[in-house]
Amino acid sequence: MSKYLSQTRANLTPYVPGEQPVDIERYIKLNTNESPFRLSKAALAYAFASLRPLQLYPDPEYGELRRAFAESIGVSADEVMAVNGSDEALYLAFSAFCDEKTPAVFADITYGFYPVFADMCRIPYETIPLTDDLQINPEDYLDAKGTIFIANPNAPTGVLLGVSDIERIIESNPENVVVIDEAYIDFGGETVVPLIRKYDNLLVTRTFSKSRSLAGARLGFAIGCTELIADLNTLRNSINPYNVNNATVAYGLGSLADDDAFRDNCTAIEETRAFTVDGLKTLGFEMPDSYANFVFARTPKMAGGELYHALKERGILVRHFDNERICDYNRISIGTPEQMQTLLDTLKELLG
Amino acid sequence: MSKYLSQTRANLTPYVPGEQPVDIERYIKLNTNESPFRLSKAALAYAFASLRPLQLYPDPEYGELRRAFAESIGVSADEVMAVNGSDEALYLAFSAFCDEKTPAVFADITYGFYPVFADMCRIPYETIPLTDDLQINPEDYLDAKGTIFIANPNAPTGVLLGVSDIERIIESNPENVVVIDEAYIDFGGETVVPLIRKYDNLLVTRTFSKSRSLAGARLGFAIGCTELIADLNTLRNSINPYNVNNATVAYGLGSLADDDAFRDNCTAIEETRAFTVDGLKTLGFEMPDSYANFVFARTPKMAGGELYHALKERGILVRHFDNERICDYNRISIGTPEQMQTLLDTLKELLG
Repeated sequence: MSKYLSQTRANLTPYVPGEQPVDIERYIKLNTNESPFRLSKAALAYAFASLRPLQLYPDPEYGELRRAFAESIGVSADEVMAVNGSDEALYLAFSAFCDEKTPAVFADITYGFYPVFADMCRIPYETIPLTDDLQINPEDYLDAKGTIFIANPNAPTGVLLGVSDIERIIESNPENVVVIDEAYIDFGGETVVPLIRKYDNLLVTRTFSKSRSLAGARLGFAIGCTELIADLNTLRNSINPYNVNNATVAYGLGSLADDDAFRDNCTAIEETRAFTVDGLKTLGFEMPDSYANFVFARTPKMAGGELYHALKERGILVRHFDNERICDYNRISIGTPEQMQTLLDTLKELLG
Repeated sequence: MSKYLSQTRANLTPYVPGEQPVDIERYIKLNTNESPFRLSKAALAYAFASLRPLQLYPDPEYGELRRAFAESIGVSADEVMAVNGSDEALYLAFSAFCDEKTPAVFADITYGFYPVFADMCRIPYETIPLTDDLQINPEDYLDAKGTIFIANPNAPTGVLLGVSDIERIIESNPENVVVIDEAYIDFGGETVVPLIRKYDNLLVTRTFSKSRSLAGARLGFAIGCTELIADLNTLRNSINPYNVNNATVAYGLGSLADDDAFRDNCTAIEETRAFTVDGLKTLGFEMPDSYANFVFARTPKMAGGELYHALKERGILVRHFDNERICDYNRISIGTPEQMQTLLDTLKELLG
């Protein structure tokens, strides 16, 4: 830290992303919930044909991309905003809808970036414990005292909250924005996007990093009523109006143009997840039902951190969190059937 | 504005970028200082070969890209940080090195985003008037009362401040960070980058949007001593650790791999600028000496806003600023010789 860093920033503890090895051939990488599938050839061809010249700035309205995405989820273009990964949408939401008097409210076990965003925005936050079996209890979020952030399915647990439960939360919080982070919604969950027409306090975030094979392109969206989206645009245009680059716009359009490939990939992940869960249970693992492209599993036979290291030594990267409540667990992304079979074989060997 | 937007954000006036027409064939586009040159074939081939798979997250350290850029400017990789356009570096610098007690200090006529960043970060700022002939007077910045931001060459004037003048400013401000925004330094200016080894309060920002033909890829860098860069990384990792996408990393590496093409393009722009300035002066325009890829010109024959509209009607986009002190002027980006000849011909016709 330099002597010039503002005292207001001195206590920041940045988010620590999962390991991203440069030497990607070295590991079976099941630690950051990426897709094992490449963008389809049809999607890439469409992207190539859509690329705005790189020497020109993007259209800061991102009109074509917003229209294509909005159509794919059944809303209109002025109800969506494109962002440089959904982290950017979340940061803007913390910046716009929280302040010293309006804290953020989220689960104790959820996406680890939420408290970091709150600290970065210098706003207080309140955490609500998950139940003992790692569920969100909707009752705990009724009549909340601030802006609510819920990852659904939740990370790193994979647990899904039903639409009716979320609607109760939204309905009971007319003075608070409720942000539903649907990064993992495409793997079997039901979206709350249609509710944006009914509730002006609902904001949904989406990412192309998981189900749409574009973690490296950095593309996400915020979805809400036009007023909430206009607020977020005010902040976006006060930080970085050209937040999404031309190549990413093209890849996004490409992915949206080949929705069949996207849906096939999601189905394949769900099938591989079912097969992985069966294998893990046979080996004695316990885990909550996952609706995401990962499972969150523990075994009485080995501590979570130890298992993480043992797998890494054998060339398999999973994610372990240094948090007392969940240190028994590892979060394992769903890769290809072959990768998951290797994982199961390795676990069998390790755990005897 | 929704009723949910924090009162702390209610008075934000976002930055208004230059027009970015979607129908790019319709205009000769001389309004946002883009390069008229595409990335070279060699650079594109290198980029293609360097692309990390899109379904994988970037390396959040951006090691290879930082090493390549650092080498090109003669510093080490831990003295640079990669950003999603230099706007992001500037926003992070405002966020890190200013606060309620440490205002931002910048010229009254300069990059219009500086006051927006200050408002977004909720910090006070002080503006220092340019001299009557649109020059920065270094004396005005000695022993300043906050964090200094100087665009060099300045925008939208194109005026260059010499290295020795900047060094005096840095030296006289040991308690303040001095940010030198070198977005336009490659068109004939002399960089202050070597001074980062001598002064721990110097931060330099660079962009690939102008001289390196990558406005649409969104790539910039911050350059400073390791402690300043570490501070900026703390904030980056508290907002968006994967701020630069894989395609942009690849394009950046490609551009750096073909430095000859980059230098040839800069030389071509300087030659076209000289020819444009001659033509404009012949037509009676006045302008300060420009060291950027634009000129900032006025004519006694027509008001700035009127000229802007007359050119737009004739298919030529330039940039006019609605600021009393400079409303006589238009900022004209340097395009190809053919585009500038068309501009001169059109102006001749317009002004008789």
